[in-house]
Amino acid sequence: MISKNNIKLIRSLELKKFRLAENLFLAEGNKLVTDILESALEVEFLFATEAYLESAGALAGRAKSIVTCSHAEIRKASLLKNPQQCLALCRIPAYTPTEAQLFSQLVLCLDNIQDPGNLGTIMRTADWFGISDIVCSVDSADLFNPKAVQATMGAICRVRVHYRDLTAYLEEANQRQTPVFGAFLDGENIYQTQLADTGIVVLGNEGRGIGPELTPLISHKIHIPAFSPPGQKVESLNISVAAAVICSEFRGRSARRQ
Amino acid sequence: MISKNNIKLIRSLELKKFRLAENLFLAEGNKLVTDILESALEVEFLFATEAYLESAGALAGRAKSIVTCSHAEIRKASLLKNPQQCLALCRIPAYTPTEAQLFSQLVLCLDNIQDPGNLGTIMRTADWFGISDIVCSVDSADLFNPKAVQATMGAICRVRVHYRDLTAYLEEANQRQTPVFGAFLDGENIYQTQLADTGIVVLGNEGRGIGPELTPLISHKIHIPAFSPPGQKVESLNISVAAAVICSEFRGRSARRQ
Repeated sequence: MISKNNIKLIRSLELKKFRLAENLFLAEGNKLVTDILESALEVEFLFATEAYLESAGALAGRAKSIVTCSHAEIRKASLLKNPQQCLALCRIPAYTPTEAQLFSQLVLCLDNIQDPGNLGTIMRTADWFGISDIVCSVDSADLFNPKAVQATMGAICRVRVHYRDLTAYLEEANQRQTPVFGAFLDGENIYQTQLADTGIVVLGNEGRGIGPELTPLISHKIHIPAFSPPGQKVESLNISVAAAVICSEFRGRSARRQ
Repeated sequence: MISKNNIKLIRSLELKKFRLAENLFLAEGNKLVTDILESALEVEFLFATEAYLESAGALAGRAKSIVTCSHAEIRKASLLKNPQQCLALCRIPAYTPTEAQLFSQLVLCLDNIQDPGNLGTIMRTADWFGISDIVCSVDSADLFNPKAVQATMGAICRVRVHYRDLTAYLEEANQRQTPVFGAFLDGENIYQTQLADTGIVVLGNEGRGIGPELTPLISHKIHIPAFSPPGQKVESLNISVAAAVICSEFRGRSARRQ
């Protein structure tokens, strides 16, 4: 049975201040929770129906504490519209990225991304394209926001997100001559730009783009051109769609060469 | 002032049966409503604050009926978390696509797409990549669902969505020798596949992919390969992300050739 206090704890994790106070985040749904149990993430509490526990078998034993409960109780505690058979409260991991992780591979860098769903979707896309580290400005959405966690669809087990002062990070990249790409409206057509196999790709906020304080630190301005008929108004790409097109373009180059 | 009956009408448009009964859909937010007023779509009712009407100027006159109201009233009627200064009720357009639109340009075809937000995001992406027509199976999400409308960010003014029996549509494509591409896990690496400038690209449902009844009608199976380290588990791409990568790959080919 899920106690009233536990329901309160679970639901409190929607807010960052409670996540920080408890050092916990919430993950929901059979697939995501199973992915987490199979990963290196630590599960403090697993709230699950008997049916889920049976299907998970020995894997459930990775949780430090298991509470068997009914689906009705899961529904009461859940933040989802369509709750499934389990909820997990997981320890927030502390990653200390190596210099190689930050500067010597392909890294996505997000300046002030606001929507947790976009952040989670970008993590899922990064996972697909073999990008293991994302650097976010400190004012970006929190990857442990339940909406971000759910949108990762399990990529949260594999993709690490680091929050950093981006000015200092990109200055160091410049000193190390790590190429810094950035998406700008006046950038070079990405389909006709020479891309590197490693480097940092900066994407800006959903509304205002990359902040002016970072612009001088970008060594390669790139742009996804619109293909709409000449003269026709066209809006913009969703940030997670732009991230996907850019990841595909970077990774696709080497695939095309083979 | 927005009457109680109008608030009821506005909020009822969240459900398809009321949209069909009224032949209206809801659009919210200053930018989207302005885009619609500038387009060929018909606005039956515009509910807006004085501030919005002042900024819209003569454009507001395109609405058949204008109701000036307070922001508090907009908030009461709105389906959004952060309502803005206006709401519009628009006539659902009836498009009759030409044969050229269906068979002689690049067309996206969605089999049983479920999430209205994904559909709206795909329309926005299509708009960017100069794809003006999308064909959906009849069991797909409704593009006039308010969540889809909002996610289009204005692309609803330019991109037409047609609901069709996909078996009949793709059979006709086969008869006309229009290439039919489809995204499959066992498809050919898209980066190494010859793509056409025109043709139909079929994307499957979020969970199960393309239905087995359509598979024999696909002439070119394609696949976006994962770039994750060998042996590492990787989930899948979000459907709107996959659509973006595929659109980029089709359109990027011609851009690279220049």
